[in-house]
Amino acid sequence: MQSYRKELWFNTSSRRELINITPEVEACLAESGISEGLLLCNAMHITASVFINDDESGLHNDFEKWLEELAPEKPYSRYQHNGFEDNGDAHLKRTIMGREVVVAVTKGQLDFGPWERIFYGEFDGKRRKRVLVKIIGE
Amino acid sequence: MQSYRKELWFNTSSRRELINITPEVEACLAESGISEGLLLCNAMHITASVFINDDESGLHNDFEKWLEELAPEKPYSRYQHNGFEDNGDAHLKRTIMGREVVVAVTKGQLDFGPWERIFYGEFDGKRRKRVLVKIIGE
Amino acid sequence: MQSYRKELWFNTSSRRELINITPEVEACLAESGISEGLLLCNAMHITASVFINDDESGLHNDFEKWLEELAPEKPYSRYQHNGFEDNGDAHLKRTIMGREVVVAVTKGQLDFGPWERIFYGEFDGKRRKRVLVKIIGE
Repeated sequence: MQSYRKELWFNTSSRRELINITPEVEACLAESGISEGLLLCNAMHITASVFINDDESGLHNDFEKWLEELAPEKPYSRYQHNGFEDNGDAHLKRTIMGREVVVAVTKGQLDFGPWERIFYGEFDGKRRKRVLVKIIGE
Repeated sequence: MQSYRKELWFNTSSRRELINITPEVEACLAESGISEGLLLCNAMHITASVFINDDESGLHNDFEKWLEELAPEKPYSRYQHNGFEDNGDAHLKRTIMGREVVVAVTKGQLDFGPWERIFYGEFDGKRRKRVLVKIIGE
Repeated sequence: MQSYRKELWFNTSSRRELINITPEVEACLAESGISEGLLLCNAMHITASVFINDDESGLHNDFEKWLEELAPEKPYSRYQHNGFEDNGDAHLKRTIMGREVVVAVTKGQLDFGPWERIFYGEFDGKRRKRVLVKIIGE
């Protein structure tokens, strides 16, 4: 069994941002040399997400609006977590979107349907944060 | 390390449907010959879900009602994604229900609690769509 | 390839409770002797959750309030599932919080960011329920 590990770093210019990281994850897989196995990709911070969906800007705007309805950023006093922080909403938004994805690796490729793309979902940005890529297989 | 891969195809007669696919996934596991490892089962489409819950029709009706409250299908104009499509709600419903499950394989069986069953959640059906089963182990 | 399996049991004194189980999961990893691989931790019941977030009591109160908004416990008649049971809300709350986490194992440790902790989320407690830890690697 082989294993591979890499951290991807992000520093968004806005508080919330969705970034297609499929090319970076594919580069990790190529570098690993693993052709059959499982790939884990997870946010290492609890106010960010890694998820799979469509790379379509209208949908991304829908996500922004929808997450603000389900877990509004303001008023900050809405959340008990916001004593010393202002990111209570980000913990909840990340919960909806998910921490991680597990992807099959087949013949050295991400084994994806036609529209599957991996996204980093930042909900409390403007600072350096990490995503972990771990691959096991052979 | 051994690996196994299979696609399961579905074509629902209604837009939304929850299908117990546990028997099909168990058949994959038996065919794989793997007795210890991890099994990944994921929707290959971004408007469908694979999740684990109870096979109880009242609960399934509750899911339908609840998901329509959280991410209503109509009016279609509610979602920016719906320029050329009408399935913006399905992307959000699938996000709530999840893309994938990872299940432990122990002694050649799905290592489940008493009520755990695997479901395909279709939120934009009436066409052929796929689920991936990938198993690694030995 | 090595594999390891253990069940963790819980019996909460209240209907809903969030428990930091990171120490128990780390003990499993140490016992397994596995240094590189993937660790799966999942609820074996469909009214409970395993998830990763921050060990901060204000946030945990926010989760309680938020989940009650998204899927209220009462009136019990709100859910069709509640014919013979009263836990329809718990199935939905667990869906939001997630069934499982998959964690990278690197150099014999849970490969975590600084604030990542594993929680058992109980939404229908006061009885003995289980979590599964399965590790594969070498």
